[in-house]
Amino acid sequence: MAFCEEVFIEGLTEQGMERVMSIKVAINGYGTIGKRVADAVDAQDDMEIIGVTKTRPSFGCDLAVRKGYPLYCTYDDESKIAAFAAGGYQCEGGLSDLLEIADVVVDCSPGKVGASNKEKYLAADVKYIFQGGEKHAMTGMSYTSSANHLENKNVQGTRVVSCNTTGLSRTLVPLYEHCGSLSVECTMIRRAADPGDSAKGPINAIKPVLKVPSHHGPDVMTVKPEIAINSMAVAVPTTLMHCHSIVATLPDGHGLTTQSVLELWKSNPRIIIMNGAETNITTTAEVMEYARDIGRKWGDLHEIFVWEDGVKLDGNTLYYFQAIHQESDVIPENVDAIRALMGTEDDWRVSVAKTDAAIAIYNGI
Amino acid sequence: MAFCEEVFIEGLTEQGMERVMSIKVAINGYGTIGKRVADAVDAQDDMEIIGVTKTRPSFGCDLAVRKGYPLYCTYDDESKIAAFAAGGYQCEGGLSDLLEIADVVVDCSPGKVGASNKEKYLAADVKYIFQGGEKHAMTGMSYTSSANHLENKNVQGTRVVSCNTTGLSRTLVPLYEHCGSLSVECTMIRRAADPGDSAKGPINAIKPVLKVPSHHGPDVMTVKPEIAINSMAVAVPTTLMHCHSIVATLPDGHGLTTQSVLELWKSNPRIIIMNGAETNITTTAEVMEYARDIGRKWGDLHEIFVWEDGVKLDGNTLYYFQAIHQESDVIPENVDAIRALMGTEDDWRVSVAKTDAAIAIYNGI
Amino acid sequence: MAFCEEVFIEGLTEQGMERVMSIKVAINGYGTIGKRVADAVDAQDDMEIIGVTKTRPSFGCDLAVRKGYPLYCTYDDESKIAAFAAGGYQCEGGLSDLLEIADVVVDCSPGKVGASNKEKYLAADVKYIFQGGEKHAMTGMSYTSSANHLENKNVQGTRVVSCNTTGLSRTLVPLYEHCGSLSVECTMIRRAADPGDSAKGPINAIKPVLKVPSHHGPDVMTVKPEIAINSMAVAVPTTLMHCHSIVATLPDGHGLTTQSVLELWKSNPRIIIMNGAETNITTTAEVMEYARDIGRKWGDLHEIFVWEDGVKLDGNTLYYFQAIHQESDVIPENVDAIRALMGTEDDWRVSVAKTDAAIAIYNGI
Amino acid sequence: MAFCEEVFIEGLTEQGMERVMSIKVAINGYGTIGKRVADAVDAQDDMEIIGVTKTRPSFGCDLAVRKGYPLYCTYDDESKIAAFAAGGYQCEGGLSDLLEIADVVVDCSPGKVGASNKEKYLAADVKYIFQGGEKHAMTGMSYTSSANHLENKNVQGTRVVSCNTTGLSRTLVPLYEHCGSLSVECTMIRRAADPGDSAKGPINAIKPVLKVPSHHGPDVMTVKPEIAINSMAVAVPTTLMHCHSIVATLPDGHGLTTQSVLELWKSNPRIIIMNGAETNITTTAEVMEYARDIGRKWGDLHEIFVWEDGVKLDGNTLYYFQAIHQESDVIPENVDAIRALMGTEDDWRVSVAKTDAAIAIYNGI
Repeated sequence: MAFCEEVFIEGLTEQGMERVMSIKVAINGYGTIGKRVADAVDAQDDMEIIGVTKTRPSFGCDLAVRKGYPLYCTYDDESKIAAFAAGGYQCEGGLSDLLEIADVVVDCSPGKVGASNKEKYLAADVKYIFQGGEKHAMTGMSYTSSANHLENKNVQGTRVVSCNTTGLSRTLVPLYEHCGSLSVECTMIRRAADPGDSAKGPINAIKPVLKVPSHHGPDVMTVKPEIAINSMAVAVPTTLMHCHSIVATLPDGHGLTTQSVLELWKSNPRIIIMNGAETNITTTAEVMEYARDIGRKWGDLHEIFVWEDGVKLDGNTLYYFQAIHQESDVIPENVDAIRALMGTEDDWRVSVAKTDAAIAIYNGI
Repeated sequence: MAFCEEVFIEGLTEQGMERVMSIKVAINGYGTIGKRVADAVDAQDDMEIIGVTKTRPSFGCDLAVRKGYPLYCTYDDESKIAAFAAGGYQCEGGLSDLLEIADVVVDCSPGKVGASNKEKYLAADVKYIFQGGEKHAMTGMSYTSSANHLENKNVQGTRVVSCNTTGLSRTLVPLYEHCGSLSVECTMIRRAADPGDSAKGPINAIKPVLKVPSHHGPDVMTVKPEIAINSMAVAVPTTLMHCHSIVATLPDGHGLTTQSVLELWKSNPRIIIMNGAETNITTTAEVMEYARDIGRKWGDLHEIFVWEDGVKLDGNTLYYFQAIHQESDVIPENVDAIRALMGTEDDWRVSVAKTDAAIAIYNGI
Repeated sequence: MAFCEEVFIEGLTEQGMERVMSIKVAINGYGTIGKRVADAVDAQDDMEIIGVTKTRPSFGCDLAVRKGYPLYCTYDDESKIAAFAAGGYQCEGGLSDLLEIADVVVDCSPGKVGASNKEKYLAADVKYIFQGGEKHAMTGMSYTSSANHLENKNVQGTRVVSCNTTGLSRTLVPLYEHCGSLSVECTMIRRAADPGDSAKGPINAIKPVLKVPSHHGPDVMTVKPEIAINSMAVAVPTTLMHCHSIVATLPDGHGLTTQSVLELWKSNPRIIIMNGAETNITTTAEVMEYARDIGRKWGDLHEIFVWEDGVKLDGNTLYYFQAIHQESDVIPENVDAIRALMGTEDDWRVSVAKTDAAIAIYNGI
Repeated sequence: MAFCEEVFIEGLTEQGMERVMSIKVAINGYGTIGKRVADAVDAQDDMEIIGVTKTRPSFGCDLAVRKGYPLYCTYDDESKIAAFAAGGYQCEGGLSDLLEIADVVVDCSPGKVGASNKEKYLAADVKYIFQGGEKHAMTGMSYTSSANHLENKNVQGTRVVSCNTTGLSRTLVPLYEHCGSLSVECTMIRRAADPGDSAKGPINAIKPVLKVPSHHGPDVMTVKPEIAINSMAVAVPTTLMHCHSIVATLPDGHGLTTQSVLELWKSNPRIIIMNGAETNITTTAEVMEYARDIGRKWGDLHEIFVWEDGVKLDGNTLYYFQAIHQESDVIPENVDAIRALMGTEDDWRVSVAKTDAAIAIYNGI
C-alpha cells in the first residue's frame, strides 16, 4: 500500500488541505463498470486514478489512453506485459506494480476471479472493493451508501452490492428506518443483456430464474439484515434497464401515506421520482431518453427511477415500480465506498453529496 | 334463439342420442380468438358452428371458407352484406340472420362493442359468451371451468375471463379449495404483442402498468371471490407468452409441501408441469417449441405451464412461475362455458375431459 | 446398405407395386431439421423411417417415442447406448446398427462432423444426404429439386443446400431457364436465432456479415453454376424468417414483364405469391401467422413467400423480396433428394408433386 | 427577417469581427432532431439560438428551459400561448414573433406540415431549412455538405436530406467525384423505432417496404443527380441504427482498389472507418457503445460508420456496409446548411471543419 500522503502546506485552509490529499485508486478490470468508476473517481477532488488494468492490448485500451489513465496489465507475466508495447500501447507494468502505488483497488473484473484477486490485494496490503458479481461470503462485508457506510469505515475490503441490490437498498432502507421493520416481496424483470452486448439472447422469450426465491432480494440483507426480503426474477429481451415490481409490507402503525412515502424518498439521495402520465415517461425507453437529454455521460442514470403514479400504499401494503440502470447505479457507491474504507468521511450524506456534485459537474449539467 | 333439437331416434343408445343433439354455435368476430374457438367447437360432437362473422370481405374470410364455416356480416346493413359478394365471398346474411338460427353466440369482437352487442343478443333471445376484454360489470357473470361451472348453468350470458385470469384460476382454485383461504400477490410479465401483430411495440423497453395494483389479479375474484389477490403488471418485448411470478400465502395448517402442491396441480386438468433442468425447457421460447413439437394446431398450448423446479413452498409462502399462452388458454373454457349455459353438462370435470379429448383428436395427437 | 426390396406381388397394378417398395431412411441427428425430415418422409408412401439418432437420453427423445420412430444412439460406444435404457428410453443400437438396415441416411447433425460421418456412410455403403451446414467441397454434389434433380440420380451422396440457397434456387432457376443467363445481387436479412433458441442474440442490434461478398449467394452456383450471383448478409433480432432483397439483371431480349415474372413463378412449385396490400400480410410475422392458420405442422412454411406488390421489373432489372422459413423450406427437398439418389423418380416435378401432396395430407389441409 | 447584424468594433481583427457576427437561428419543433440541432448551433461561434417552439406546455419544455433557450409556441393562437404560463413555463410568444427576430428557421416539425409552414416562412421573409421528412418537390432544393454546399449559397430555403440519404451521400459523393460516374444498388436495413419510442413495433418480424425500388436511394439524386441509384428497404426490430448494404458499380478505368477506396473515404469528413475484427465492433450495438465511450452527447454518432473489413472492391463492383445513426448524422449538415443559406462560408470543407470542431468541444472530447 502506498502511503496516503497528506501534504500540509502552511497557510492552507482546512478545505485547501483536504484538496491536496488525494486517495490513489487503481481499477483492476477496465470494462463496463471499470470505465465508469474510473471517470467517477477522476471527477472527485479527493481521489485520483493511478492506473487501470487490461488483460491484453485491445481496442478497449484506447479509451484509457484517451483519458490519460496509466495502463497496466492484469497479469505480472513479463510476456503479457510486453505484448502491450507490441500492440502499440504503453504499459506501465503488471498488477503488482500497480498495487504497490495504490491506496485502494476497485476490482471490476468480469469473471469469478475474486478469491484469487483478494489474495493478491491482501498480500499487497492494499484496500479493496469488489463488485456485486462476487459473493458476500468472500468479502464478509458489503456496502451501499445509505445502508451501512459507517460500518465500512476503515475496513480492509468490502463489496459494493449489485445494481439490483443497490437499487432496492435506495428505496427500502429509508422505509425501514422510518418503520423499524419491513417485509418485502419483489419480482425483478431483468434486461437480458447490456446495450453493447450483441451476443446474448433471448431475442423473443421470457426466462424465469427457476431458483425460487432468487438470490437477488436477500442480498439486501448483506447491507441491512433487518429487512426481510425475498425475490423472484425473470430475464426479458431488452438491454436498457431492470424493472422491479415491489410489494412491501409495513408494520402496523407505520403512519405513512402514499404521499408521505414519496416525500420520504424525495428527501433521500439518488432517487428520481417522476409522474409517468405528466412526463410521458412510461417505459424504460423514455427513462433512458431522459438520461440522454440531461446530458449524462454514456446516457447513464445513477439514480433509481420511481414512477410517482406507480406507487400505492394500501393499508400496510406498499406497491411500487422502480427502474434500475444496471450499468451505472453502483458507480457513485464505489466512490463513497472508497471514502468509507479510507476513513476520510464518516457521514454518508456528505460523501454522497460530494460524489454527486462532482459527477454532475463532469457530466456537464 | 333456435330450438335446440334433440332428435330421438328409436333404437339409439343414450350415447348415440347425445351425439345427434348438437348445440348451434355462432362466432361473432372471426379473429385471433374467434378462429380458435370455432375450430374447438367444431371438434366437439355435441355442438357445431353454424356461422362466423367478419366486418368486411377480406383475406381473413378465406380461412372460414377453407373450414367450411358459413360466413355472415357483422352488420345487418344490406350494402355491407352485399360487399362480400363483390369481394368474391358468399355471405349468408347479417348478424341478425345468424343469431336467429343460433343457440349461443360466442362474442370474439376485438373492440369495446360489448354493450351494444349484448343488446342484440338479448333482443334475439340467444345465449351469449363474451371474452375477457369486456368487463364483468357488463355481463354480471364470469366463467372459468374449474372455478364456477355450475354457477353458470343455464344463465343467459357470461364472460370467459381473460387469458391471465384463466391461468391464475387454473392453479389458484385448487389451492384455495384445499386450503380454504388464500392470499396472493402476482406480477404479470406480459408479452407486448401477439406473434401475428407487427405494429405494436415496444422493441426495447419494459413498460410497467402504472395503475397499481393492476386490474388483472383481482379479476380472479369474479369467478372465485374468496381468493384475495392483487397484481402488478409490466409489458415486455416478446410475442410468445405471458409469465406470472406468484407469491401465495397459505393459511396456517395448510398441510402442504412443495411436492404435494405439485401433486395437487397434476391432479387438475389443463396444467402442464415440467422440470426445466431436465427438459431444457427454461424459457417461454422452449415452451412454445414444445407445443409445436406435440403437433398442436397454431402451436397453441391450452394448458398452463408450470416449471416444477420453479415452485417452492417455504412455510406458508408458495413461490411459483407459470407461463400462459395468451392466444389459446381460454379456448377450451369457451367450449365448457357453452355447455354450462346450455345446461347440458353439470360436472365441470366431465366437460373438460370431453372438450380436451376432442381437441386432442383434432390436434392429431 | 440394406437391400431395397421391391416386392412383386402377383396381380398388383404398377401403382400398387410402387407402393410396396419402401425406401428405408435413417435420420442421423433428430433436432430442428431432423424431426421435420422424419415426419415428411413418414408421410410418403414410397419410403419409411427405420430409425433416428440422438446423442444421449434427453427430453428430445420423447418426440421420437411419441412418433414411434426407432431410437438409436449417435455413437457405437456401448456405454453411451446403455445410457438410454438408464434414462428410460429404448435404444435399438448405435449408428452402425442403424446404417446396416438403411438404404439412405439423412444427416441432420448440428455440428461440423460431416467429414467423419461421411467416412462412416461410405464404410457402410449407404447413400447419404447432408444439409447446407456442410460445404459443397465435402460432398462434391449439391441438390435442389428444381435445379439439378436428374444430375443427382443414383449418386452415392449429396448435400441439400441451405434454407437460403434453396430459397434463391426456387425463384432464380425458373428465371434463369427462361432467360438463358442471369446476374444477381442479393442482401440477406437473416433471423438471428430460431424460435426455440433462447440463448443467442442480438437483442437490439444489426450484425453485418463482414466477409463481403458473403458465401450465401454463390452457394446457388453449386446447383446451377450458370447463375452469376453475389450476396451480402446481416443478422437481425428476429426469430421468424429470413428475408431476401434481390436485384436480378436479366439479359437483353428477356421478353418478360413484372406480370409475366409473377406468372412464371406461379407455374413453379413451392412458391407462394401474395399481395401484401390485399392480404395485410406485410411482414414476416403475418406470413408465419398465415402458415399457422392453414394448419401447417409446427407452423412451417415449406414454400418461399414472395410479395406480389414487392416485385418490379424495370427494364432489365428485377427487384423483389422473398421470405424464407429457415426451419422448413429444405424439408421437402430432402424427400425429393432421397428419390434422386435411389433413382426411383427421374422427373423432379413428379417427385415434388408427390412429396407435397403427402405432406399436405399429413398437415391436414 | 431580422437584420443580421455585423457589429464592426474598431480595432478588432477580422477574426474577431467574424466572431461578433451571429446568425440568429430559430428551431421550429423541439423534438428528437430539434433538440440536437439547437445544441449544435449553440456550440458554434457564428450563430445562436434565439428561440425554440413547442406545441404546448409539456415535459419536453424542461430541456429548453435547462438549456436557456427562449421558448415559443408553435402557434400564434393567444390561448395556446397563454397555456404555457398556466403550465409553469415562460413563453415568449408565437411562431410569428419568433420568425420576426430570426435570420433562419430550422424546421424540425414531426408531421407533414411542411407546406403550410413554408408559407409562413416566406411571409416572414426568413430563410428556412426543412428536414428529410419533407419532399424535395416542396423546397425544390436539397442539401448535404459534401454534395452541393455551394449550390445552396444564398438560397431562400432548402431541405437537409434524411439520415439515410445523408449517409449515402457521405460515401458515394467522393466515389462519384473520383470516378466521374457511379451506379448503385442499396438495401437499407432500417431500425424500426428510435430508442425513446416505445410504441412502435415490430417486436419480432422483418417488414419489407413493398414499394420497390424504394424512395430512399433515389433521394440522393436530389443533391447529386449524376449518381444513378436504386434501393430496397426493410424495417427490423432494433432501435439503434440503420445499416446499408451497398453494391456500387464503378466505371471502367476507375483506377481504385479496396485500399484506395478506404483512403478516399478517410480523406473525407464525417466517415469513421474501423476494423471489426480488430476492434470487436461487429454490430450496431458496439458502434453505439463506442459513441458512448468517446463521450458523445446522447451517445450520438454524427459520422457514418464503415467497417474496414466489410469493404471489397471486386473488379468494377464495390461492396460495403455502413451504419447510420438515424438520430444524429444530419445534425452537423444543418449547421453547414445555415452557413450556405446565409452565404457566410463558401467552402464546404471549411464549414464542416468549423462545425465539427465546435461540436467536438461541446462533446468534451
